[in-house]
Amino acid sequence: MSTASVTPAPSVDSVVRVAPSALERFCQGVLAAAGADAATAVAATRAMMHGSLFGIDSHGVRLTGHYVKAIEGGRVIGKPHIEVTRTGPAAAVLDGGDGHGAVVTFAAMEAACDMATTAGIAAVAIRRSSHFGAAGAYALAAAEAGFIGIAVCNSDSFMRLHGGAERFHGTNPIAAGVPVAGGKPWLLDMATSAIPYNRVLLYRSLGLPLPDGVASDGAGIDIADPHGVEMLAPLGAAFGHKGAGLAGLVEILSAVLTGMRLSFDIAPMGGPDFSTPRGMGAFVVAIRPDAFIDRDSFDAAMRRYLDRLRGSCTAPGAAVMAPGDREWAEAERRRQDGIPVDPVTIEDFTALAKRLGVPLPVFDRN
Amino acid sequence: MSTASVTPAPSVDSVVRVAPSALERFCQGVLAAAGADAATAVAATRAMMHGSLFGIDSHGVRLTGHYVKAIEGGRVIGKPHIEVTRTGPAAAVLDGGDGHGAVVTFAAMEAACDMATTAGIAAVAIRRSSHFGAAGAYALAAAEAGFIGIAVCNSDSFMRLHGGAERFHGTNPIAAGVPVAGGKPWLLDMATSAIPYNRVLLYRSLGLPLPDGVASDGAGIDIADPHGVEMLAPLGAAFGHKGAGLAGLVEILSAVLTGMRLSFDIAPMGGPDFSTPRGMGAFVVAIRPDAFIDRDSFDAAMRRYLDRLRGSCTAPGAAVMAPGDREWAEAERRRQDGIPVDPVTIEDFTALAKRLGVPLPVFDRN
Repeated sequence: MSTASVTPAPSVDSVVRVAPSALERFCQGVLAAAGADAATAVAATRAMMHGSLFGIDSHGVRLTGHYVKAIEGGRVIGKPHIEVTRTGPAAAVLDGGDGHGAVVTFAAMEAACDMATTAGIAAVAIRRSSHFGAAGAYALAAAEAGFIGIAVCNSDSFMRLHGGAERFHGTNPIAAGVPVAGGKPWLLDMATSAIPYNRVLLYRSLGLPLPDGVASDGAGIDIADPHGVEMLAPLGAAFGHKGAGLAGLVEILSAVLTGMRLSFDIAPMGGPDFSTPRGMGAFVVAIRPDAFIDRDSFDAAMRRYLDRLRGSCTAPGAAVMAPGDREWAEAERRRQDGIPVDPVTIEDFTALAKRLGVPLPVFDRN
Repeated sequence: MSTASVTPAPSVDSVVRVAPSALERFCQGVLAAAGADAATAVAATRAMMHGSLFGIDSHGVRLTGHYVKAIEGGRVIGKPHIEVTRTGPAAAVLDGGDGHGAVVTFAAMEAACDMATTAGIAAVAIRRSSHFGAAGAYALAAAEAGFIGIAVCNSDSFMRLHGGAERFHGTNPIAAGVPVAGGKPWLLDMATSAIPYNRVLLYRSLGLPLPDGVASDGAGIDIADPHGVEMLAPLGAAFGHKGAGLAGLVEILSAVLTGMRLSFDIAPMGGPDFSTPRGMGAFVVAIRPDAFIDRDSFDAAMRRYLDRLRGSCTAPGAAVMAPGDREWAEAERRRQDGIPVDPVTIEDFTALAKRLGVPLPVFDRN
């Protein structure tokens, strides 16, 4: 990752910080009070804490209020009946019962890992899920269990096609996690759009022009003014057919192969309808490395690959990192210093605490 | 794919054309005469014809001479012993016996499809292979058999990391094919670099500057002058950590998980050593849609997705296409008009025909 060319990360830069354990307790408490069962409260909080620890604040604890609203409104079933139907030695369909995306997807990845233990590789098609949250959380869960994990999900339309002039695919993320012996997992978590929307909002608030080829106006023309953005561009700019193609693969696995809604059929995350389940699909894969190579060789090759990568030549003023390196370092910092919480989220938390009778965590305002 | 923003395709623009069947016969004959067994001659020609029909001329029949040299030199074993070892209900390791990449990879994809028939999803780790050729050929083979196929392969270093200043990953392609009832398969075949190297050569020959952020000089600085290119940039320009991350996933699956060479350990395709096998790995996955959803629903959703995609709004002067649409149309044209062959390849063919005693195909020079 180039420090010279990378735009500022859209992290919350607030002086208000909260200890991770206190934040975790609060989110779980609020979700439970809103009607979530224990598994849902724990899983949803785990996914949000992944975002909040790793510096992906758009998918962090700021979503708590949104999830409460979805559970209270009935869009998300707080106590879902989740059912796994095995359809082959390496395949299953998981009906999420319109539960929270995190409880559904962690369960799916666990089922995939279970099957891959004997099958070598396994996949679970997820039906009747909801907002995915941080895709990397599920890939990481697999990697921490010793598997290569891949998680994809489509979402409501927000990205144009290459040459297109309407919102077509969602930001359709791809996440992959790989276990690293004696180190933190290799962890890729990327939208297939050129830029996340929250990055557009950051440029807006900073009054800066957008980089080339990352977002477009209503006619599908790429623009530099962040205020005119109507849709995101697929990854690749002039070669955006690649980003659009990857988004399409995610769409096919998440929606076509699961019988769930295509991006352009998914109700917007923001509402107004908070009572109808969104009918979202997703797809996860787990691979057991030992089914393909002895574990010592895998671990040694992964180590050598990463050592060589981290020690490779850099462009002037730049650095190179493996996927996840920046996030692991950020998580370490945030575990020490606390997790920054933005003013809107603090306001949200204060109202939730009062209404649901859950004690607010201590905000450290130094 | 935008007709407005896409740079010219690097196809061979020659008035000399050859009928596909005659070209196919010639390539098979030459490979057999050089020492390839029937399976190798057929598979290598099939992969090259995929490139030549689909307009991916860099991976088309121009490789014939290169493959002859590799077989004659001993780098590629013309009559390989290929062995599939099943390691689980959905997993196998295929030892390619240092055979041609096409015969090895078609065999691996066939084994993956066989296993996925009962398992739902299956993967084959490929060991001791050689030059991969057009990755899309293997994904297409799966799609034509009714499976979703994914094929990846690393290659000798040619792409910098994001922020990097040395050749690190190869162009590490990702190919995926999806069956479409009553239509041609959906087919994605993309390098994870921003641009293919042959496109750089095209800009050179046209005397045109490169688009932003696609290739770099020796210090890892992106440049517009195609003559100064020392390495390719990862897909994504300012967000090149995504392209580099995808290349890394391909590297891990193709090399780490197979115990084969990492990109920076692979001998260059161009030589000088044509006697030592290159020790390349690859990885293929097959998914049986019916293991996750009834086939009619899958087919109907795929159809609706593609109809909606092809009919969606376009930017001024642009068109939208599904992955493979441009290539299928080009294949149709080339089946009608013949396959264009560049002057260097004709020279190559003429020498091979004479030396190996294989009749030259008729070149239509109108």
